[in-house]
Amino acid sequence: MTLTKDNVNVEAQAIEAKKASKSLMILSDKEKNDALHHIADVLERDFEAILAANEKDLRNGREQGFTEAFMDRLSLSQERIRDFAQGLRDVAELEDPTGKKLSDWTLENGLQVEKVTVPLGVIGMIYEARPNVTVDATGLALKSGNAIVLKGGSSAINSNQAIVEVIHKALAETKIPQESVQFIASTDRAATNQLFTMKEHVDVLIPRGGGKLIQAVVENATVPVLETGVGNCHIYIDKDADVEKAISILVNAKTDRPAVCNAAETLIVHKDWLAQHSDELISALKKENIHVHGDEHVLTIIPDAVPAGEDDWKNEYLSTDIAVKAVDDLVDAIAHIETYGTKHSEAIVTENQEAADKFLAIVDAAAIYHNASTRFTDGGALGFGAEIGISTQKLHARGPMGLPALTTVKFLMKGTGQIR
Amino acid sequence: MTLTKDNVNVEAQAIEAKKASKSLMILSDKEKNDALHHIADVLERDFEAILAANEKDLRNGREQGFTEAFMDRLSLSQERIRDFAQGLRDVAELEDPTGKKLSDWTLENGLQVEKVTVPLGVIGMIYEARPNVTVDATGLALKSGNAIVLKGGSSAINSNQAIVEVIHKALAETKIPQESVQFIASTDRAATNQLFTMKEHVDVLIPRGGGKLIQAVVENATVPVLETGVGNCHIYIDKDADVEKAISILVNAKTDRPAVCNAAETLIVHKDWLAQHSDELISALKKENIHVHGDEHVLTIIPDAVPAGEDDWKNEYLSTDIAVKAVDDLVDAIAHIETYGTKHSEAIVTENQEAADKFLAIVDAAAIYHNASTRFTDGGALGFGAEIGISTQKLHARGPMGLPALTTVKFLMKGTGQIR
Repeated sequence: MTLTKDNVNVEAQAIEAKKASKSLMILSDKEKNDALHHIADVLERDFEAILAANEKDLRNGREQGFTEAFMDRLSLSQERIRDFAQGLRDVAELEDPTGKKLSDWTLENGLQVEKVTVPLGVIGMIYEARPNVTVDATGLALKSGNAIVLKGGSSAINSNQAIVEVIHKALAETKIPQESVQFIASTDRAATNQLFTMKEHVDVLIPRGGGKLIQAVVENATVPVLETGVGNCHIYIDKDADVEKAISILVNAKTDRPAVCNAAETLIVHKDWLAQHSDELISALKKENIHVHGDEHVLTIIPDAVPAGEDDWKNEYLSTDIAVKAVDDLVDAIAHIETYGTKHSEAIVTENQEAADKFLAIVDAAAIYHNASTRFTDGGALGFGAEIGISTQKLHARGPMGLPALTTVKFLMKGTGQIR
Repeated sequence: MTLTKDNVNVEAQAIEAKKASKSLMILSDKEKNDALHHIADVLERDFEAILAANEKDLRNGREQGFTEAFMDRLSLSQERIRDFAQGLRDVAELEDPTGKKLSDWTLENGLQVEKVTVPLGVIGMIYEARPNVTVDATGLALKSGNAIVLKGGSSAINSNQAIVEVIHKALAETKIPQESVQFIASTDRAATNQLFTMKEHVDVLIPRGGGKLIQAVVENATVPVLETGVGNCHIYIDKDADVEKAISILVNAKTDRPAVCNAAETLIVHKDWLAQHSDELISALKKENIHVHGDEHVLTIIPDAVPAGEDDWKNEYLSTDIAVKAVDDLVDAIAHIETYGTKHSEAIVTENQEAADKFLAIVDAAAIYHNASTRFTDGGALGFGAEIGISTQKLHARGPMGLPALTTVKFLMKGTGQIR
């Protein structure tokens, strides 16, 4: 086994997780829920130890000159820790996704077949500097009967470690083995790389974070990956769009929470609509301080717009900037989405049902909207309960992923000596 | 775009497939079924062209001294082509897996949400020298609204090309675009490697063939993979196994079709049972010409057994050889399966319900049997209709994969201006 530079044995931890997952998978829903409630209680009780560790991370962060937004995500308080605890209690309330008989039937020879849901086994969580992921992901993993290996960002390592120590302390008083939650206390990149290929011990990797992190996992991992998050989302304002709906949806999708993955990044607008409604559009953009990067046609119409290039079409701004492209028709709009979209959330605004139906049928994305903001692609908004991420892939799970995404199936075959 | 050494432009073909998939995904079930029936008719009509091409492959195969089993899989006849055609007609009879509304609900704000099944898009099929895969995979892909890029083994290239020419000729007279079926007519390994990373154009890769092929795809592909097939399956004969059931299940799982993935490769036997029933076991193994590779304990009991090593525990024989390991209890048996199993099919033979329940609950595999042969892990035997392969992975699909494994979902959101 290879140690990281800071002497962490990732493989040994993954093996411990795998072993623990065997005990965990046969616990009852009540045993798992009791454990989640107990973790919640101990988190609330021992919040000071977590805040002390968090202070170290914040100090390091200030020294390294991290941005305010970054420091905000990193920063904990008693209130935030209470929110973490409440999150665990909410997860305990959800339906156990395992042990569900999806179907059963009997073959002519009498062999009974049952298809049941079971935990995946061990989840590898790779994430950036958001300590809340440590608690949220642990809660979802344990509730679904999975062990978890946590590899968080280096800048939150003290906070994460303190949180996991509290979780371990709590688990010692429950039916869930402490080894079910493994925290990779390493700042060596090799630790993450080792997780990428531990197919024997880790059943799935879930990256949570920016596009680069996700890309690195997808390209290098041989462990199966649940790809989440990057949302280069488009709002297409069709020729026949109602002006009020169009502007309200655009503004909401762009400005409600610009840094989240279901925020709009590009406006595609039909040239005829733009010609007719440019005044309303320009005034709304101005009022909301939305900064436009436009194509050549748009530059002639929207004052203060700067020229958009390949990077603007391709990347998320995660700010109140927006790329704007003018098109001749629906086909051009769909082609642009096909080229630059990340298969997350795409919207058409139109009063023309035929155009809407075509858009809904042809666009290839997890969520496709007609006359609504892309901001609804979210487990909470859709009523799924807590989510582990929003899948932008097509296999296994697509769109907001709740607890069922953390399960697989087994076929149980009960016989009396049947042969073929 | 890079050409292969034999001047094949894989990327251009994948792009054509992607484009065709857009037209294909909006066809009706009837339009797809009519096309499948027409392909079947034209295959039967033009069988001579296919047989002539197959003769070239067989001549090359003989020159290269391929094994008889290999030549048998490669060899076509009018009857086999009729079977291919019948297979397509059978697929046409199956329920269309796309366009199914899995659920729908309305949010409090009136936004209507529908979760519907849709085709994956483009399937990349990588397989060895079995020309039947060319027809089977094409049928399943088209029925489920997907385009397909076929990369078959070099030794069947003439047969496969002739089959695809016939398919193209037939498609020209149907609603399905010819470009939906792309055949990579290259013997350059670079062609396969290029497919591995074409994430933009290919939605999933499905390898069909031996362990080495599957391993190469899993390790090198950044396109998501549906892993199929390697079955290092175990029969565990427990202390309390009925002797007749045990021997009949063992013989069936080992000898019915030794070369398939659900055949048994290792017998794990409880020492007490072995001590009591060695005569019956030895005589059955002898009668069926099953050649034993045993551990030290087994060597003292079964005459003619040769010593088993790590390779015997780890690999499929795909012949009438079997590895035999004696264990002290159920826990040892499960630990052996955990170490060497490929998560395909595992069986326990016992009259002890508690032992059976524990085995069914803890063993991690697609199909787990109590008192029945592992040979039932098969789409046909389970009543799923035609299968694209048997998944040994946990994500997306596990066990025999029928048409639903070739679909994903979309969330369709129908609003009247909803914002968040």
